[in-house]
Amino acid sequence: MRLTKPEEESELLAALTRAQAKSPFWRDRFAALGLRPGDFVPGFPFEQLPLLSKSELLADQAEHGPLGRLLAVPPEEIRRIHKTSGTSARPLFIALTQRDIADTYVSATRAFKAAGMGPGDRVAHCLNFNMWSGGVSDYLPIEAVGATGIPFGVGNTSLLLETIRSLGVNAISSTPSYMYTLRDRCRAELGLDPAELGLKRGYFGGEGLLQVPGVRAGIERDFGLVAIDANYGMSEVLSIIAGEDAARDGLVYHAWGIVYAELVDPSGRPLPIEAGATGELVFSSLRREGQPLFRYRTNDLAEILWAETADDGLLRMRYRIIGRSDEMLVLRGVNFFPQALQSVIPAFEPALSRFYRVVRPKDGDCGALEVLFETDLPDGAERDHLAASIAAKVAATFQVRIEVHWLPMGRIPREANKARYLVRSADEI
Amino acid sequence: MRLTKPEEESELLAALTRAQAKSPFWRDRFAALGLRPGDFVPGFPFEQLPLLSKSELLADQAEHGPLGRLLAVPPEEIRRIHKTSGTSARPLFIALTQRDIADTYVSATRAFKAAGMGPGDRVAHCLNFNMWSGGVSDYLPIEAVGATGIPFGVGNTSLLLETIRSLGVNAISSTPSYMYTLRDRCRAELGLDPAELGLKRGYFGGEGLLQVPGVRAGIERDFGLVAIDANYGMSEVLSIIAGEDAARDGLVYHAWGIVYAELVDPSGRPLPIEAGATGELVFSSLRREGQPLFRYRTNDLAEILWAETADDGLLRMRYRIIGRSDEMLVLRGVNFFPQALQSVIPAFEPALSRFYRVVRPKDGDCGALEVLFETDLPDGAERDHLAASIAAKVAATFQVRIEVHWLPMGRIPREANKARYLVRSADEI
Repeated sequence: MRLTKPEEESELLAALTRAQAKSPFWRDRFAALGLRPGDFVPGFPFEQLPLLSKSELLADQAEHGPLGRLLAVPPEEIRRIHKTSGTSARPLFIALTQRDIADTYVSATRAFKAAGMGPGDRVAHCLNFNMWSGGVSDYLPIEAVGATGIPFGVGNTSLLLETIRSLGVNAISSTPSYMYTLRDRCRAELGLDPAELGLKRGYFGGEGLLQVPGVRAGIERDFGLVAIDANYGMSEVLSIIAGEDAARDGLVYHAWGIVYAELVDPSGRPLPIEAGATGELVFSSLRREGQPLFRYRTNDLAEILWAETADDGLLRMRYRIIGRSDEMLVLRGVNFFPQALQSVIPAFEPALSRFYRVVRPKDGDCGALEVLFETDLPDGAERDHLAASIAAKVAATFQVRIEVHWLPMGRIPREANKARYLVRSADEI
Repeated sequence: MRLTKPEEESELLAALTRAQAKSPFWRDRFAALGLRPGDFVPGFPFEQLPLLSKSELLADQAEHGPLGRLLAVPPEEIRRIHKTSGTSARPLFIALTQRDIADTYVSATRAFKAAGMGPGDRVAHCLNFNMWSGGVSDYLPIEAVGATGIPFGVGNTSLLLETIRSLGVNAISSTPSYMYTLRDRCRAELGLDPAELGLKRGYFGGEGLLQVPGVRAGIERDFGLVAIDANYGMSEVLSIIAGEDAARDGLVYHAWGIVYAELVDPSGRPLPIEAGATGELVFSSLRREGQPLFRYRTNDLAEILWAETADDGLLRMRYRIIGRSDEMLVLRGVNFFPQALQSVIPAFEPALSRFYRVVRPKDGDCGALEVLFETDLPDGAERDHLAASIAAKVAATFQVRIEVHWLPMGRIPREANKARYLVRSADEI
């Protein structure tokens, strides 16, 4: 177990005490645990508090909407409302006070600076502004680090291509997935090699795709840019929590002093945060005023690469995301993450698109995993050969048997925010 | 002529001197006028400088792109790039330094406060974030006045309706035109009277539509809200320059200390700014660092309702926009503004949509003005009768003869930013 340091403990106890006093959700939850005002004192066994899941927050907003009993300030103190990007069916509303907003900038500015963003970068910010924190909350730190920001949003790729060329845009901030759209449209509409767009740096976020072998190298090769995983975060905790620095050796944790980090095993037991440890990341609010969270499960599985306590008593660490616990499939005892299939695609392009869906098996221990790929090849021998080649490559790479099903090119929705890889059935598409 | 007050004169002379030193565009332009460094001293006949038009800025960016020789700072000092919303063919890029950005918030915050926005308002900001200054630059002042901001953008009306209802949104910031879309979709998708959405205040901008007789009353009646013309401005000068206050008696000028205002007659001669004066508004930068403008023609024709010099030596005024000089048609000696036709539409709804285009006559003195309206009525007697009724009403209201042409409902593009009313030919649609 990671031992809470005194410097963090005092902040954490103050946050718990505030939440107990101001948030009906936490007041009731603490009461149900037998915790009373005055109980949050040095030595309080924080690691024994139960974990909190997103479904509990969604249920709170569904029953006590719109902002739930979690809200710990009067509604008129909320300055900005975001929503989660909605890979789950119902969005979660995120309510930020003035200080909460400022905290998102602090951590994001640390992250963008560490990623090398600064004066001379002319960054088109191509994340959705439509309530997503990837929009306005992640845009402003681009200006804060001294780069030139271009608040572009998503949904007009032709205009983006024109703007990149006419404005001499040399950097992009987007999801990695979007780069496939940009690449294809650049070739189709401009007849131009994407490397000639002049993009020098890509600051990516919103999804963990750069971790998939081959994806980063592919984007870097196609566009002739340096691709940086600049943005790991989640709105309900902090829009940007971590990001790569110049070394690009895992994600550097930037939320120290704002968020308290833990690592837990599959049963929820705390694990020491030290090099080599793997587990699920769990976060707690040290400062959040609007919607304070304690021991919040991220579903993100991380491997700690390096960790130490700095002079200020706060944790510093590097980690890499190895998958999402809620997307992990266990197939005949083998852990398999659907997004990992991205790594086999380049070998089959352009007959195959970058977009696919894995159908979650009803029985976890299924014989073969159903995967829907897109192609323009007509029904026939060539297509059957492609299917067999993909299945062979997947089996060799992941020791996983797949059954290839076909969809026409363009059939799978292109996501504005972050890519999905898992569906419950083929009908979901 | 409005006499420059000493307090404004010193700011203006400093701005001219800076521009001469730092902007190649102004250095050359001043040199061509025989003006040398050191010429901008008290008593300088500012009102004799030639007027500047948008086409000159567009030509500068086309020839010396992307930001033109107008730029008065090194490119790396630019923090944000907007573009004009593009009713003209080519967008103009607007480059803002940190101070320029801060100035947009100062004036916008004055405007939103005067419009009554503040704590308790939960404002969905439904202007396009895609580089337009109506996006991020106009969004942040909503938070600055203490309201709750919802950065929504445009393009997802169904989600907006759902969000208004689930979040209890009680105010909207959008173009007036967008309210027609929202009204129709609310009825069609939710089967709900728009007045039941719960919107109490509408803060409108981006276009002068509220000035058209009947438009404000129609929006207020349909939605049961108070409609405020909260946002008069143009990115190249200042995103928000003026807006209505609670009296809703014209636009209150909020750019004092940031922008210097003049009024000119059709030949460009200065007019006194005093109650009853009408002319074109002309603006100059007192503080703009990125792209300083002097004697910039807005093409907006204004009537001054009230004006005085405050204790700080700076102009305060109220005015109303009576039309755009570049959209004004002179028909047999009668001035006619295409957007004025909005006022006759409600009498013919729902057979007629809110969208139409006036075809600019090749000969200004044409017999009848060609107007394209949308309807779902089939070719036949009923439609002919509708056309005759519209023409009769327009003739009675404006002393203008029109020839009605028909387009199917939905044929005219719905604009995300601001409505257009004038085209060169029917083919332009």
